[in-house]
Amino acid sequence: MSSTIGTSLRCTVFGQSHSEAIGCVIEGFPAGFKPDFDELRAFMARRAPGHAAWSTPRKEADEFRVLAGLNPDGVTCGAPIACSIENTNTRSQDYDQLRRVPRPGHADYTAQLRYGGHQDVAGGGHFSGRLTAPLCFAGGLCAQLLAAHGVAIGAHLAEVASIADKPLPSWDGTRASQERLAEALASVARKPFPTIDDEAGRAMQRAIEDARTSLDSVGGIIGCAVTGFEAGVGSPMFDGLENLLARALFGIPAVKGLSFGDGFEAARSRGSLNNDPYGLVDGECAPLTNHAGGILGGISTGAPLTFSVAIKPTASIGQKQASVDLEAGRPQSLIIKGRHDPCIAPRAVPVVEAVTALVCLDALITWPPTHL
Amino acid sequence: MSSTIGTSLRCTVFGQSHSEAIGCVIEGFPAGFKPDFDELRAFMARRAPGHAAWSTPRKEADEFRVLAGLNPDGVTCGAPIACSIENTNTRSQDYDQLRRVPRPGHADYTAQLRYGGHQDVAGGGHFSGRLTAPLCFAGGLCAQLLAAHGVAIGAHLAEVASIADKPLPSWDGTRASQERLAEALASVARKPFPTIDDEAGRAMQRAIEDARTSLDSVGGIIGCAVTGFEAGVGSPMFDGLENLLARALFGIPAVKGLSFGDGFEAARSRGSLNNDPYGLVDGECAPLTNHAGGILGGISTGAPLTFSVAIKPTASIGQKQASVDLEAGRPQSLIIKGRHDPCIAPRAVPVVEAVTALVCLDALITWPPTHL
Amino acid sequence: MSSTIGTSLRCTVFGQSHSEAIGCVIEGFPAGFKPDFDELRAFMARRAPGHAAWSTPRKEADEFRVLAGLNPDGVTCGAPIACSIENTNTRSQDYDQLRRVPRPGHADYTAQLRYGGHQDVAGGGHFSGRLTAPLCFAGGLCAQLLAAHGVAIGAHLAEVASIADKPLPSWDGTRASQERLAEALASVARKPFPTIDDEAGRAMQRAIEDARTSLDSVGGIIGCAVTGFEAGVGSPMFDGLENLLARALFGIPAVKGLSFGDGFEAARSRGSLNNDPYGLVDGECAPLTNHAGGILGGISTGAPLTFSVAIKPTASIGQKQASVDLEAGRPQSLIIKGRHDPCIAPRAVPVVEAVTALVCLDALITWPPTHL
Amino acid sequence: MSSTIGTSLRCTVFGQSHSEAIGCVIEGFPAGFKPDFDELRAFMARRAPGHAAWSTPRKEADEFRVLAGLNPDGVTCGAPIACSIENTNTRSQDYDQLRRVPRPGHADYTAQLRYGGHQDVAGGGHFSGRLTAPLCFAGGLCAQLLAAHGVAIGAHLAEVASIADKPLPSWDGTRASQERLAEALASVARKPFPTIDDEAGRAMQRAIEDARTSLDSVGGIIGCAVTGFEAGVGSPMFDGLENLLARALFGIPAVKGLSFGDGFEAARSRGSLNNDPYGLVDGECAPLTNHAGGILGGISTGAPLTFSVAIKPTASIGQKQASVDLEAGRPQSLIIKGRHDPCIAPRAVPVVEAVTALVCLDALITWPPTHL
Repeated sequence: MSSTIGTSLRCTVFGQSHSEAIGCVIEGFPAGFKPDFDELRAFMARRAPGHAAWSTPRKEADEFRVLAGLNPDGVTCGAPIACSIENTNTRSQDYDQLRRVPRPGHADYTAQLRYGGHQDVAGGGHFSGRLTAPLCFAGGLCAQLLAAHGVAIGAHLAEVASIADKPLPSWDGTRASQERLAEALASVARKPFPTIDDEAGRAMQRAIEDARTSLDSVGGIIGCAVTGFEAGVGSPMFDGLENLLARALFGIPAVKGLSFGDGFEAARSRGSLNNDPYGLVDGECAPLTNHAGGILGGISTGAPLTFSVAIKPTASIGQKQASVDLEAGRPQSLIIKGRHDPCIAPRAVPVVEAVTALVCLDALITWPPTHL
Repeated sequence: MSSTIGTSLRCTVFGQSHSEAIGCVIEGFPAGFKPDFDELRAFMARRAPGHAAWSTPRKEADEFRVLAGLNPDGVTCGAPIACSIENTNTRSQDYDQLRRVPRPGHADYTAQLRYGGHQDVAGGGHFSGRLTAPLCFAGGLCAQLLAAHGVAIGAHLAEVASIADKPLPSWDGTRASQERLAEALASVARKPFPTIDDEAGRAMQRAIEDARTSLDSVGGIIGCAVTGFEAGVGSPMFDGLENLLARALFGIPAVKGLSFGDGFEAARSRGSLNNDPYGLVDGECAPLTNHAGGILGGISTGAPLTFSVAIKPTASIGQKQASVDLEAGRPQSLIIKGRHDPCIAPRAVPVVEAVTALVCLDALITWPPTHL
Repeated sequence: MSSTIGTSLRCTVFGQSHSEAIGCVIEGFPAGFKPDFDELRAFMARRAPGHAAWSTPRKEADEFRVLAGLNPDGVTCGAPIACSIENTNTRSQDYDQLRRVPRPGHADYTAQLRYGGHQDVAGGGHFSGRLTAPLCFAGGLCAQLLAAHGVAIGAHLAEVASIADKPLPSWDGTRASQERLAEALASVARKPFPTIDDEAGRAMQRAIEDARTSLDSVGGIIGCAVTGFEAGVGSPMFDGLENLLARALFGIPAVKGLSFGDGFEAARSRGSLNNDPYGLVDGECAPLTNHAGGILGGISTGAPLTFSVAIKPTASIGQKQASVDLEAGRPQSLIIKGRHDPCIAPRAVPVVEAVTALVCLDALITWPPTHL
Repeated sequence: MSSTIGTSLRCTVFGQSHSEAIGCVIEGFPAGFKPDFDELRAFMARRAPGHAAWSTPRKEADEFRVLAGLNPDGVTCGAPIACSIENTNTRSQDYDQLRRVPRPGHADYTAQLRYGGHQDVAGGGHFSGRLTAPLCFAGGLCAQLLAAHGVAIGAHLAEVASIADKPLPSWDGTRASQERLAEALASVARKPFPTIDDEAGRAMQRAIEDARTSLDSVGGIIGCAVTGFEAGVGSPMFDGLENLLARALFGIPAVKGLSFGDGFEAARSRGSLNNDPYGLVDGECAPLTNHAGGILGGISTGAPLTFSVAIKPTASIGQKQASVDLEAGRPQSLIIKGRHDPCIAPRAVPVVEAVTALVCLDALITWPPTHL
């Protein structure tokens, strides 16, 4: 169903931007794990609004409450894990206007058609980026369990407003190259602005600030990698890692593109360059390059999973835009009030990590190497 | 499960490159439709091998047999539609070699890990591109039903070996612009080489021939569009049209990237340029541009669905490649025998259309505009 | 997944007997419906404990809070509906004892094996009958929407401790016979003890009281019927109404049997008696009897859906029982403290109705009569 | 979807009574198993028609062909297993009559409503009992793999026409009692008429013959047991073993009731009698009786799974029956031509075993004891 992702490990997200609360229910999380909730709060803070110049000033504590799924020792007990996050901000007053004049680039118009005008339009309702908070709760939990098994997930801003970050350290089949990659991403996760190269990061922030002062917005590209992911996980055709990551990642608002490994550049390459040769590394077979992004036939190769996610410019901009009054049936220009993130990409970085963690843990549980 | 796609309309694909037969079972196809099997054969012929210089010389009749799902009048009866296509080619003789030395860029190695050496390695087994034949059967059937409801799906080779086709006609909110697009794509479907611009097509074919003579291969990018698709279809978060198309399209072998509308270019744009303004067209609200690719919040806007699919270079090349003898645990170079498509992208064009048809019909049935 | 039921309309139940809260998330509920929450509270009160001599004295307010899924007008908005019910009772102190010595007839032992000792044992954890409260929330909501479309669901205690209630009014193909049935069940719903025949009800209550004073328990059989349910709904093989109701109803704790129409008695009948002949009623074809329980081939016939549910005697009894100390590996007798329902069947009546409502609404949405 | 059952191991059944072929596709069957197809043919022969006086004389070879899913060594390879069985009988000639006058007790009328008259009515179409042949193929395969792991499934005719077979050997917690049960059922599987007590079997056959000569039919009750099934398998609420078996077993045509363990008799018992006490058997905890049918909270206890299935009398009888001409809108009596099983229950015995095997193997794969 629409707001659920996963096969053996399933996460259902609920809530609207201005409902009583938002939250999620996670089914199939393994019993016997004791989450570190301080660490989870720190992870979620990377997504939270209001912390930086490039972010919306709406301040929500994003304090979660675990309603169920733990035993009295604070350990997962096999029952669904439920979490709620209260919405403390009040509802917008111009509710009627929102329903009548859809904002370009938002889901207002399509939701109006889909739900016949009954959708909750305030703040984007169920389509709001705020719904990524419970996704981060769920994905953060999964990331902790994965980390306990040697799997690390990290992402960086590969590009904002055509300014590129340094590329991620490359893979050569060795454990050392994997560790360089994991360390680079761990270091990004500790920074206030998620780039490898701080100079590039400052240039990006200036471009974002420039967009803000022009009442405009910019997009970006997020690069993500998963290290330590066992080879042989996933399934052919429609339950491969690419299929599952794709279905999940396009669930993050504003994502418009996704590519694995060399992606669109692979389409411009040649087989002799794009094929990853196999060699022996520490006596084991391994691909020696990673143009494939760690996935062949939907199944992990043992190389890091790598992929890029394209984020469109924030749809909410302060400039006057052309729209239509749906009720009156006449053109109606629109100026969106309030302040919004002039670039959503930096805050989307932990969301990409969270969604990736959900998919990776589910895949490990559902499609491990299996045979008699 | 791995080889099944769809929610209300589900297609399960079976078969291996050299099993007795390949085929599919389609559940949930509406009762009461009389397929045109001659038209379906013509559609499937666009994918079939052996017809052109740029294609593998393996000749399979691809003659399908409908085992079930029709009533005596040849009309769909509500029961699952089952189709089989016999495999007439004999199995490869060097089966043991295939199992021991994985081909770079193929799923041989990952399948070996996943299935513990029990996988059918001949011709790629269940991972073979040959499995796209039943996908074309299923998708072709769906395309016929969609066409009867005014929905047209078409694709072209947007790029091969860095040679670009002319772009698709653009959308301005009018029915005329939609018809121009549909006609352009219908015309491509009748050509032996699927480009809008024949000059570009000839240059692409030369580049493919050049790759072949170098014992190498090239990739490509496929542009696809859906016209006449009702607004208001799809669902937020994980069952949006982007999510569903993404999960399905990454099931086509060799697909490594996917973007909707302006895709990765949107990530380099500004909100003021990327937002599609609304206007009144023939008295109805409509987006006047289509940077979004016809989808907002996972739901169709009424503009054509547009997306691009990156196809990697064919993994099978005639050059010597480095690999490993998995049994002996030592390096083992590999030369792939037989001839293969030096570019799979042209034959993937109807496959992209077929998979898109499956998803679009399923979405129309499963997530139409619904409310009381 | 384990705690989710439904196809287009899906309900996920979360919580443990002593977690912070219990609740549910409902996906796919149609947009545009304004629930009557007072009516819903009244419905849920029929299940709530502590109201009668035959019921457990644990008093929980069962006051629900709707976290999400409504627009500001209190109307369903298409987003998932989330509800939480706080657990106000404190946790049992003898947690360790519960984990070590499984109670006969409960899931303690099987949960211990399934979750490796991490399960929340207090009060039965996720296996507790308390989880039927959110089921009643969800099903009560569905019942309201069904009622708005002329579908009524009702149940009665057909048998307790071998004391039988009067049978439900029978069906003869006429609207009048359907109304008699609906009225009989509506009248039961207003009674404190859910029988058609009050005399039988009093005898049952005496038998229950007798079981209590013997520190024992009794079971019962619940008869349920659905009137006004459109003909032609459901699907062959595994998504028929019988399959769906069966999967859902066995999710109610203590259910051990289920039969449709004449059920096990049909197995003792003859075809000439058991087949329901067709006739014309008000000019329309209709079955004139209803041995089939309103379902043939998994699809509704237009006659009322009728079925019986067997409820085992409450597992918690005050007598000394034989068990094992799992940690010490030695026999350990057990006396269950606290007071429990000596017969769970009366409180299970609205739960059966609720689960039936969930399934019926889902089936109407997912498998209506469909053809071109 | 309607014709698919299972979670990790999924079986999709296709075909109509008179389509070109019937068959199934099994996804998720473990790689590395070499089926014994002679044994499978022998299993399927127990279901096949035409072998005995009590069975329909329609003779179909039921010879299956494995289209895919095996590697060249005849070992399952991880890809979907597809099987087809040709339909050699010709279609009925009075197709129009079948569509107009629905047979009482069959799905003709409900299918007509569901599929708008497009359903394949010949021989019951997709609703035909003939579709249980591919179910037996799939279930027989699963039973072989289960047997290799010590799990045995067997069933007997517990009752036909109110004549009862001897009860199954009871369980007392010991391996010896389990072996007695398994042996009793294995012995039944070798008999032409599936009862424990041959005298009862002869009386049942006389009753069936008596029904035939009266142009009538009788029903029956099948008792089934699974031995050697690991404790701790299954999941709470809606994915328990009872839920899964129930959804699947009601997919067998003519099943109208299902109960686990003591079932409806448990509803008439007392907690002190119905609870299964735990004791130490060979140093391990085990239930010492089995009123619960081996399942508590949806999870296996280690005792045999036991359940009863009610089969209604065959709907096709030779007597004149009342029906309606749907096209003309007038009453029309009906005499069903051809000969049919006067009791379907004996042939349903292996079908119950097959469906049980599918569910049990799926449950072992999907919901094993899992925790960190």
